[in-house]
Amino acid sequence: MAKTRNPPTAVDVVIELYRPGTNLAGPELEALEGIVLIERGRPPFQGKWALPGGFQEYGESLEQTAVREAKEETGLDVVLVSQLSTYSAPDRDPRGHVNSVGYIARATGSPLGADDAAQAQVFPLDQLPELAFDHAKRIEEDYWGWRSHQSLRNLIDRLYGGDRW
Amino acid sequence: MAKTRNPPTAVDVVIELYRPGTNLAGPELEALEGIVLIERGRPPFQGKWALPGGFQEYGESLEQTAVREAKEETGLDVVLVSQLSTYSAPDRDPRGHVNSVGYIARATGSPLGADDAAQAQVFPLDQLPELAFDHAKRIEEDYWGWRSHQSLRNLIDRLYGGDRW
Repeated sequence: MAKTRNPPTAVDVVIELYRPGTNLAGPELEALEGIVLIERGRPPFQGKWALPGGFQEYGESLEQTAVREAKEETGLDVVLVSQLSTYSAPDRDPRGHVNSVGYIARATGSPLGADDAAQAQVFPLDQLPELAFDHAKRIEEDYWGWRSHQSLRNLIDRLYGGDRW
Repeated sequence: MAKTRNPPTAVDVVIELYRPGTNLAGPELEALEGIVLIERGRPPFQGKWALPGGFQEYGESLEQTAVREAKEETGLDVVLVSQLSTYSAPDRDPRGHVNSVGYIARATGSPLGADDAAQAQVFPLDQLPELAFDHAKRIEEDYWGWRSHQSLRNLIDRLYGGDRW
């Protein structure tokens, strides 16, 4: 085992909120209302908007962390869709060295800010506010990259038949 | 910051070894000799083959960890190509809860086992031995998934022109 101090790991969750009644296993893009953000209730970046998330606990998989933190901060029961990349630059969090693993999740319902979140709110994808930490990069590179990849897969499926993948 | 004990994070590196003189920025698949594995020199899984890798240190990005551990265990100067997924199941390492982030890297030269590695050796992709930890899953799901995605991108580039991506 590592004998020395090691960076803790946290998760950031991009929660896609869909209209009530949407089948989250295969939602239509038209049913997507936006992304759920929280207003940070404590430093650093207090008062800034951010992706919901938080620290992994010992004995907890990062997928469990993502579902737990989404629930604690937004009240939503989310379904995880995909893992995004892991950020680990030592200076990405002003409190110290923290790794962050991204997730995409889907939910329906009304978000309600709690725990570390002063409030939670849905933002349409073209009206996102300024974000804390490196969360803008998370959305612009990882989340949009994932959406682009999904579109590519859908295109290939239409061209060649979905049974090839 | 996290006040409680938190899982350390390690990296596993899938090192593609190419023939001497290969341009690692855009290598031909024909120049790929195989994957570099190490024989573990200490428990757990002592004597088993495994992907090179090791623990992240505080203040070190996971990319730095990957390059450092590859060098320490195989003697190779690797070029990182892509990040793979992050595994975090609490029972994946018998020593305790350890997250692992995967990387794909490329190198030329002759691997030489050192540090935690009793030896290092190149294995053709169709002749991989039994692997320690969840490293077989890392290769079968993540690495082959990445290769499949690369093939898809190359196909699309040929069909529609590479300037669209």
